Amino acid sequence: MSLTSNPILLVLLLFGRTRRWMTSSLRLGLLSCHTGAYVGKLLVVPMDGSHWVGMKAISQEMGRRGHRVTVVMPEITILIGPGEHYETLIYPLPFDKAFVDFIMSKNEDVLGKATQPFLERIQEKFSQIKRITELLHTTAESLLFNASLISHLAQQVSRFDAVLTDPMVPTGSLIARKLGIPTVNLLRGIPCFLDMQSTGCPSPPSYVPRFFTGLTDKMDFKQRVINTLVSALEPLLCRLIYWRFDQIAKEFLEEDVGVAEVLSDSAIWLHRIDFTMEFPRPFMPNMVPVGGINCNVRNPLPEDLEPWVSGKQGFVVFTLGTSMKKMPDEITQVFLEAFRQIPQKVDRCHFGDEFLNGKWHISTTWVPQNDLLAHPGARAFITHAGSHGLFEGLCHAVPMVMVPIGGDQPDNAARMASRGVGVVLDISSITAEDLLQGLNEVINDTRYKENMKRLSALHRDRPIDPLDLSVYWTEFVMRHKGAKHLKAAVHDLNWFQYFCLDVIALLATIVLVFIVLTAKCLKFCCRKLSRKRKQD
Amino acid sequence: MSLTSNPILLVLLLFGRTRRWMTSSLRLGLLSCHTGAYVGKLLVVPMDGSHWVGMKAISQEMGRRGHRVTVVMPEITILIGPGEHYETLIYPLPFDKAFVDFIMSKNEDVLGKATQPFLERIQEKFSQIKRITELLHTTAESLLFNASLISHLAQQVSRFDAVLTDPMVPTGSLIARKLGIPTVNLLRGIPCFLDMQSTGCPSPPSYVPRFFTGLTDKMDFKQRVINTLVSALEPLLCRLIYWRFDQIAKEFLEEDVGVAEVLSDSAIWLHRIDFTMEFPRPFMPNMVPVGGINCNVRNPLPEDLEPWVSGKQGFVVFTLGTSMKKMPDEITQVFLEAFRQIPQKVDRCHFGDEFLNGKWHISTTWVPQNDLLAHPGARAFITHAGSHGLFEGLCHAVPMVMVPIGGDQPDNAARMASRGVGVVLDISSITAEDLLQGLNEVINDTRYKENMKRLSALHRDRPIDPLDLSVYWTEFVMRHKGAKHLKAAVHDLNWFQYFCLDVIALLATIVLVFIVLTAKCLKFCCRKLSRKRKQD
Repeated sequence: MSLTSNPILLVLLLFGRTRRWMTSSLRLGLLSCHTGAYVGKLLVVPMDGSHWVGMKAISQEMGRRGHRVTVVMPEITILIGPGEHYETLIYPLPFDKAFVDFIMSKNEDVLGKATQPFLERIQEKFSQIKRITELLHTTAESLLFNASLISHLAQQVSRFDAVLTDPMVPTGSLIARKLGIPTVNLLRGIPCFLDMQSTGCPSPPSYVPRFFTGLTDKMDFKQRVINTLVSALEPLLCRLIYWRFDQIAKEFLEEDVGVAEVLSDSAIWLHRIDFTMEFPRPFMPNMVPVGGINCNVRNPLPEDLEPWVSGKQGFVVFTLGTSMKKMPDEITQVFLEAFRQIPQKVDRCHFGDEFLNGKWHISTTWVPQNDLLAHPGARAFITHAGSHGLFEGLCHAVPMVMVPIGGDQPDNAARMASRGVGVVLDISSITAEDLLQGLNEVINDTRYKENMKRLSALHRDRPIDPLDLSVYWTEFVMRHKGAKHLKAAVHDLNWFQYFCLDVIALLATIVLVFIVLTAKCLKFCCRKLSRKRKQD
Repeated sequence: MSLTSNPILLVLLLFGRTRRWMTSSLRLGLLSCHTGAYVGKLLVVPMDGSHWVGMKAISQEMGRRGHRVTVVMPEITILIGPGEHYETLIYPLPFDKAFVDFIMSKNEDVLGKATQPFLERIQEKFSQIKRITELLHTTAESLLFNASLISHLAQQVSRFDAVLTDPMVPTGSLIARKLGIPTVNLLRGIPCFLDMQSTGCPSPPSYVPRFFTGLTDKMDFKQRVINTLVSALEPLLCRLIYWRFDQIAKEFLEEDVGVAEVLSDSAIWLHRIDFTMEFPRPFMPNMVPVGGINCNVRNPLPEDLEPWVSGKQGFVVFTLGTSMKKMPDEITQVFLEAFRQIPQKVDRCHFGDEFLNGKWHISTTWVPQNDLLAHPGARAFITHAGSHGLFEGLCHAVPMVMVPIGGDQPDNAARMASRGVGVVLDISSITAEDLLQGLNEVINDTRYKENMKRLSALHRDRPIDPLDLSVYWTEFVMRHKGAKHLKAAVHDLNWFQYFCLDVIALLATIVLVFIVLTAKCLKFCCRKLSRKRKQD
């Protein structure tokens, strides 16, 4: 009964440095800035955490191009907030910031602790999953069953030409269906491949590795067995992840419909993937790869930081994402010990408070890791292998030491490692020697940097910038009220029609009847012949 | 033993208004015009006929951007010829123009003649197929086994960064493999889906209609049976089409390799399709849809033609493609009778000699149909439904009367008709009334024009112009010496691994063993119990 089988992925979705924008009722904060002529109206229903990064970039760019963009956001958020080029519509939540911070602090408990008994760790993980999924459901319900807000949106239905949302939490998709507005999805991927199911996209388990397996596209027999079993369990996993949202959908839409069907309405799927990171696989015409959306969204470093990063030996960028505010003490010590033994300085992005030492940067303000990675002094990138971070590292060709924590991170790390651009370490059993060896390897073995430069050149060599492409398809859906001509007829077929099982059954029957009849004929002829011989 | 099951498609490939560029030995005609700085070197091995149209556009644009483009062409061609921005490399053929003209004249015989006995018509078609395939093979061999030309190319191997070719006739692909140069393919599609096999692209027969079936993506049970049977026969069809080229490949490359394997080397597949015409279907990352490449390649009409087309009633554009130089007399009479009864003028593209009448344009020079269709006076487009023509009609939103002759044309026509932008008529049994009704329908029923305007708007609304996109990916392959990161790992799998049949067999065995063991256990327990009861 969880949204995903790993709590960390979920933590990334909602928690981190929580912010309370308002403490009570609905408010319409007009923050939009129209720089061009009026074009269209876009409703944005985002997911919080790192998921907001790409969506914010699109919202900002859409607003900058003159569209009127309205972002619907809860009063307590991790990253979502006002922007220069969009307006916000804020809805209240039935819990307070302290409650969210409490759950956030529990993230630390599920990380590491290799000494803790296995069963206890599993129990801890599941408790955290339960807390987070409940929060996600409550947040979604707070929006969907906020009668005044929904009626406010419904009254203004002619205002919106499209909904931009993250279908991982299908709140935006449900609103779009209710209001009859076409949807543009921005996502990394749904763990149970519901995105692939909803687009009708074939994903042969023989070379398309499944989430949570850490497999690559080149599998031996044993790995294919595992991948096939996981793919066979996907429908069940989807039921587990979305059973509560299925109920919410029925209640909210007042029709007998589930999340899978709602998502199959979607006009365009902007997938935050790129085939320099993702393994090549089939795609449908309404799926657009836009991985690396933030590559060009960057600012110069703060003035006081510039001399610090410009040292001869360069520096290492270190981040564990927005969710990992504080690492467990024993793991922090491991990292510090390794850092003491390298000539490079270390900058921990987002939260720097435990690195109070001359050698590492004390960031009291949030420094975007993309800006740090873009600096020519960046020698290595220690990352939890979240997709945004990996794309930023890839964009600026910085070799990586990856310490995946959960969710899609082990899969992402396996993809990058298979390209020879970094090493993967297990954070729960990491030692200072491992980390030091990993860092020395990616910094001093030139093959990592060379591979990374080659991969980065491929990643950056695309016919159109992924942010422009995302904006283009969002505008396309607004202009044409959808993109039906890109939707495959697979949605009109049930599963046995899709696999032509009825046709195969008919053909098999015909062949069988033919064989039986031929056999009978032959038998009859033989009998006749033998009788004739006997008579002769 | 044919290249395709319909002679007309093949006629389109090689014959039409044949041209003899040279009568004897190899010549290097330097016609290139460098407008920018030197970037790279491209070898173009094109197919003749309408297939050259898109390839010429790319070759010209590549040359215009400063690349050195070399087009290898036979001495006798239909459309291929020199251009402003590329150089040509001409090879001799063992036959003369008169021989080609003779085969060309045979096209008329296979068209129409509804009164001719069925078997005679079939025989006629097969004879024509045989003539054409022999010509194609001879032309390919004339290039591949021209030792001086191949050694000329081999010596200059460092000159070429990529080969641009049409894989339907795999001459260019064989040269690319021999010289170890990455390949960019430009194609509409290969009738036996060899392109899909070579890219590893899934094509579920439940909604991906096969060539020559005339089916759409929405099929009833009977149609799915037909489509599944055709798809099951594809490997056999491929063997039939390419058996001779398989032999040529082995001989030329001096290795045990077939066309399918050679084509799977290809770096990028530029598919001349667009999902406003083609039904949405899965695509692989190295397949790029570039349908409508010629939409923006146009010139103003000749001065003398401008007043003619500007009449109040507008005009009808009529073409049967480059292959149909002259229609059979009885069909010409049907068209003339219908044309007399409409207020519009008629312009027959390419060859106008049989329309010597004040009402229809007498074109002694070749007028590109794209330029005519772009004129606001164009009311309808009578076309054989070749893909280039359809894209041009689509680009300029001109409703269509389609009279498919062969090859992929009935399939193309079915696609456009399913969009409500035109009507389809059978040219072999056409009457003046049918044609008149068709023309009146598409000209006067505003729904056709409205549907066409909507479809045209979708077709033209793309993030990047298809010609620019084609040039981009060609340059990409040149820059990066291929595009391996876009090639799916499917090529490392054999067919039973791809479908995980070995995994399924293992899992089925485990389940079976489990069931058998459970049954045995139960049986054993039951026996024990019953014995015990008896003893009691």
